[in-house]
Amino acid sequence: MSTETVENAAGRLVPTHVNGKPQTPFAGVGKFRPSGKKAAPPIVSSADYPADGDKRVGSLRDALAAVGLADGMTVSSHHHFRNGDLVMNRVFEVASEMGVRDLTWFPSASFPCHAPLIDRLEDGTIHHIEGSLNGPLGEYASRGKMRGLGVLRSHGGRWQAIQDGEVEIDVAIIAAPTADAFGNATGDRGPSACGLLGFALADSLYAKKVIVVTDNLVPFPCVPWQIQGQNVDVVVELDRVGDPDKIVSGTTQLTRSPDRLLIAELAAKFVRAAGIVRDGWSFQAGAGGTALAFAIFVRGMMRELGIKARFVRGGSTQYLVQMLEEGLTDYILDGQTFDLEGVRSMRENPAHVNTSPFTSYNYHGKGNFATMVDAVVLGATEVDVNFNANVVTHSDGMLLHGIGGWQNCLFSRCTILPIPSMRDRMPIIVDEVTTLVGPGELIDVIVTERGIAINPRRDDLIDRVNAWNAHAPAGAALPLKSIEQIKHEVERLTGGPPAQPELSDEDIAVIKWVDGTVIDAVKKVSTKTS
Amino acid sequence: MSTETVENAAGRLVPTHVNGKPQTPFAGVGKFRPSGKKAAPPIVSSADYPADGDKRVGSLRDALAAVGLADGMTVSSHHHFRNGDLVMNRVFEVASEMGVRDLTWFPSASFPCHAPLIDRLEDGTIHHIEGSLNGPLGEYASRGKMRGLGVLRSHGGRWQAIQDGEVEIDVAIIAAPTADAFGNATGDRGPSACGLLGFALADSLYAKKVIVVTDNLVPFPCVPWQIQGQNVDVVVELDRVGDPDKIVSGTTQLTRSPDRLLIAELAAKFVRAAGIVRDGWSFQAGAGGTALAFAIFVRGMMRELGIKARFVRGGSTQYLVQMLEEGLTDYILDGQTFDLEGVRSMRENPAHVNTSPFTSYNYHGKGNFATMVDAVVLGATEVDVNFNANVVTHSDGMLLHGIGGWQNCLFSRCTILPIPSMRDRMPIIVDEVTTLVGPGELIDVIVTERGIAINPRRDDLIDRVNAWNAHAPAGAALPLKSIEQIKHEVERLTGGPPAQPELSDEDIAVIKWVDGTVIDAVKKVSTKTS
Repeated sequence: MSTETVENAAGRLVPTHVNGKPQTPFAGVGKFRPSGKKAAPPIVSSADYPADGDKRVGSLRDALAAVGLADGMTVSSHHHFRNGDLVMNRVFEVASEMGVRDLTWFPSASFPCHAPLIDRLEDGTIHHIEGSLNGPLGEYASRGKMRGLGVLRSHGGRWQAIQDGEVEIDVAIIAAPTADAFGNATGDRGPSACGLLGFALADSLYAKKVIVVTDNLVPFPCVPWQIQGQNVDVVVELDRVGDPDKIVSGTTQLTRSPDRLLIAELAAKFVRAAGIVRDGWSFQAGAGGTALAFAIFVRGMMRELGIKARFVRGGSTQYLVQMLEEGLTDYILDGQTFDLEGVRSMRENPAHVNTSPFTSYNYHGKGNFATMVDAVVLGATEVDVNFNANVVTHSDGMLLHGIGGWQNCLFSRCTILPIPSMRDRMPIIVDEVTTLVGPGELIDVIVTERGIAINPRRDDLIDRVNAWNAHAPAGAALPLKSIEQIKHEVERLTGGPPAQPELSDEDIAVIKWVDGTVIDAVKKVSTKTS
Repeated sequence: MSTETVENAAGRLVPTHVNGKPQTPFAGVGKFRPSGKKAAPPIVSSADYPADGDKRVGSLRDALAAVGLADGMTVSSHHHFRNGDLVMNRVFEVASEMGVRDLTWFPSASFPCHAPLIDRLEDGTIHHIEGSLNGPLGEYASRGKMRGLGVLRSHGGRWQAIQDGEVEIDVAIIAAPTADAFGNATGDRGPSACGLLGFALADSLYAKKVIVVTDNLVPFPCVPWQIQGQNVDVVVELDRVGDPDKIVSGTTQLTRSPDRLLIAELAAKFVRAAGIVRDGWSFQAGAGGTALAFAIFVRGMMRELGIKARFVRGGSTQYLVQMLEEGLTDYILDGQTFDLEGVRSMRENPAHVNTSPFTSYNYHGKGNFATMVDAVVLGATEVDVNFNANVVTHSDGMLLHGIGGWQNCLFSRCTILPIPSMRDRMPIIVDEVTTLVGPGELIDVIVTERGIAINPRRDDLIDRVNAWNAHAPAGAALPLKSIEQIKHEVERLTGGPPAQPELSDEDIAVIKWVDGTVIDAVKKVSTKTS
């Protein structure tokens, strides 16, 4: 699709143009310096909005007509409803009925529930998607069927791209679990409660036109106003905006895999041995089974040591909420919510603090929270011997995952990837990652069931764990290994390194770094690959 | 100072240029339409800020040097400390020591405590002030001693001017009662607690450089973060940033004047008679003695009628807090805080909601809260027979008051000015206001101790009060009069209309309307005037 490429600072060939726009190749971590001013929406006048504050229109179609939806526009949405979103398929269905064509969809993430949008890509309503492509849409793109290139960004990178004017949103669709007729909106209550609406905050601030869609209209004022009505043009009511069962689950599933539990426990022992767990520390762990188990292990340690975290970063789960309520942390700083306990706590507990991609992650701000987190626990689909990691493609080259906050979190003081050394007998540690999403210099520790590999750049961590091991009781020393050694052990078991995916030369998507530069391209998967 | 003038839509002669910048004359309420995009600060990179989040420097001088303070720059500040501000005099003293000249000071308001800045105006450190000029600085300007023209804006107009790029802030100084080393800051706690920091919000979002000054540094994160550290460049600690006794007083003084009490009671009876007090209504009243008395009278009515407000707009006082805690209102929407009870409630009660000039007042947004308030009670220094009102100059022409949120509040569904018909035997109702700050078409009712004058434009209100009076018990009818009649009665007592102030032709300040246009100019007071 793109022809010209250039080798970036990570040695990856990346296109010079993406969907017609010139690109900056990745220059190294912290090397690129932006210039110019932030983007800004048009100045409007209150005189053009209803004095009684009632911005409602009768239907989604009326709303799209009111904001002047037209061919070629960029339409954005948030993913706080995750796989329970009931809005965006309808939006593009209506757009299709209106005869609008060649839209760019700019979601903060897409989910399997958006598979029907393949029809909108096929019928020309949507030209291409810029945003995480989880599941079916990723596979569709991987097979080279999308007209434009996919552009994958981290949560912080999405804010950066909007803020820096790289993406101009014509129409933002903000599905809201509760809203008033003025457009004030919140995610923390209502039948479709999802917790936060922070992924839509940049959209509300920078988009030319903003539509709030809700299934729970309350009298003005809707409090809290996570989204401010002063940024909203139109409000429309639908019967249902989200399927609660698919937004958050009542209980989050802990892993039962003995290997995963071992990995989580090793990761927890590592942060203690390395002196990271101390009074006033902070950590971030997601909602994956291993991350949950890690949180439970460190909770036990903190009780045992009689210490307290200053803050824990969510996505929240019942386990983090328990820590807050038990007094094991002063604050939860939350960007999203993974279960109903998280939603409740966020609504009720002032020590459970809302964040946004601006406060948490935006690299083009005057700092962000990510660099102040003592330890972060993340996943990966592949890691290479230089600690470079992949989180978007599988080893067959299929683009099946979004980046989320993953790239942004790498800036933590200690980035730990607790991962199994193989999946379905495929080694996870490779010579070179299929897709480079995170540079190895930011990844400090790999924890597998076969041992812990610390990045040689972090001799401070190596020294501390060695010192710990020197005084550990028999059998309690942490199994430090080089990453090559773990790789070698796995390959002996699996019979060698994994097969290279069969990829064409054609790019189907690019991966942006947190500063808007292009760190890698994703290739089309050959039709032979299943 | 300015030579060219033009007659605006209100018939006032206003300068075509102010401090070298071209101006748009007032075109009528809701007539001017802005164009272009909002202002935006430079794009920065987190790579240039400390990864550990510690932005502290050792002194105010280091802070000003770090942000590159230089001749001719615009320096902004907020007025949440009111007459207890201990920061801005020091800032300009340091600037003077650094040899910096010709600064524009752009405060959200100045107070008598800033009288020492007359020395900085005299020594050339400050060129002129754009912002409310309360007391001594107003008198200094009124006597023609300031080099540039004063520019007075409402709270919403200040946001509009920053947002629209009319004022570019080079360095914002944000004095904060509590902050962390990253720059997150809050006003609701700490020894200098002042409640909110909303008047500094636009400064933090749009200024090129932002300095947070605090006397209560807490470990990261400072929660809540009314100001986000991601917008802050430098943090500096001072021994004291505000004098608590002068920021808020433990008790707010109710008026004891029988005339004022009568006026407040009449205003309260009016809102009931006009059908405005009903279940789910809303109102705003300030912290003046009459406004407080009004709030207490309507509280009694609401108890008697068994009804509840949907929201009350602050500045908060203990009386509003009592209403919230008693269940007489669902919410207090607060822009500032006038007493310690207000600060406490804001900190503790989630139904006490922070607002900013953006949400409350900004005219160049997609609506704002002001238009949704059922009734607002405001003051005035003069009102004319066309209901035009003045709130900045006295009848001697002296510029002694700021605009505050006054202009913005005029957009309420019913704007009521409860004012004495004379002050020191000077009639308050005049043929033409000395300075036009609020157009008569937005002012609905004047309540004096001699009777109530309803603007003839509001025949709906006249009809409703007449209907009420028709069924009122003997002696309980509301004393409706024409504004001319009240004026006539007063002039009979005082011996005629007040003397015209002795003013020169020279402009010393301009008054901006909420949309950035110039609604009037303020003339230099002749030296003869005391």
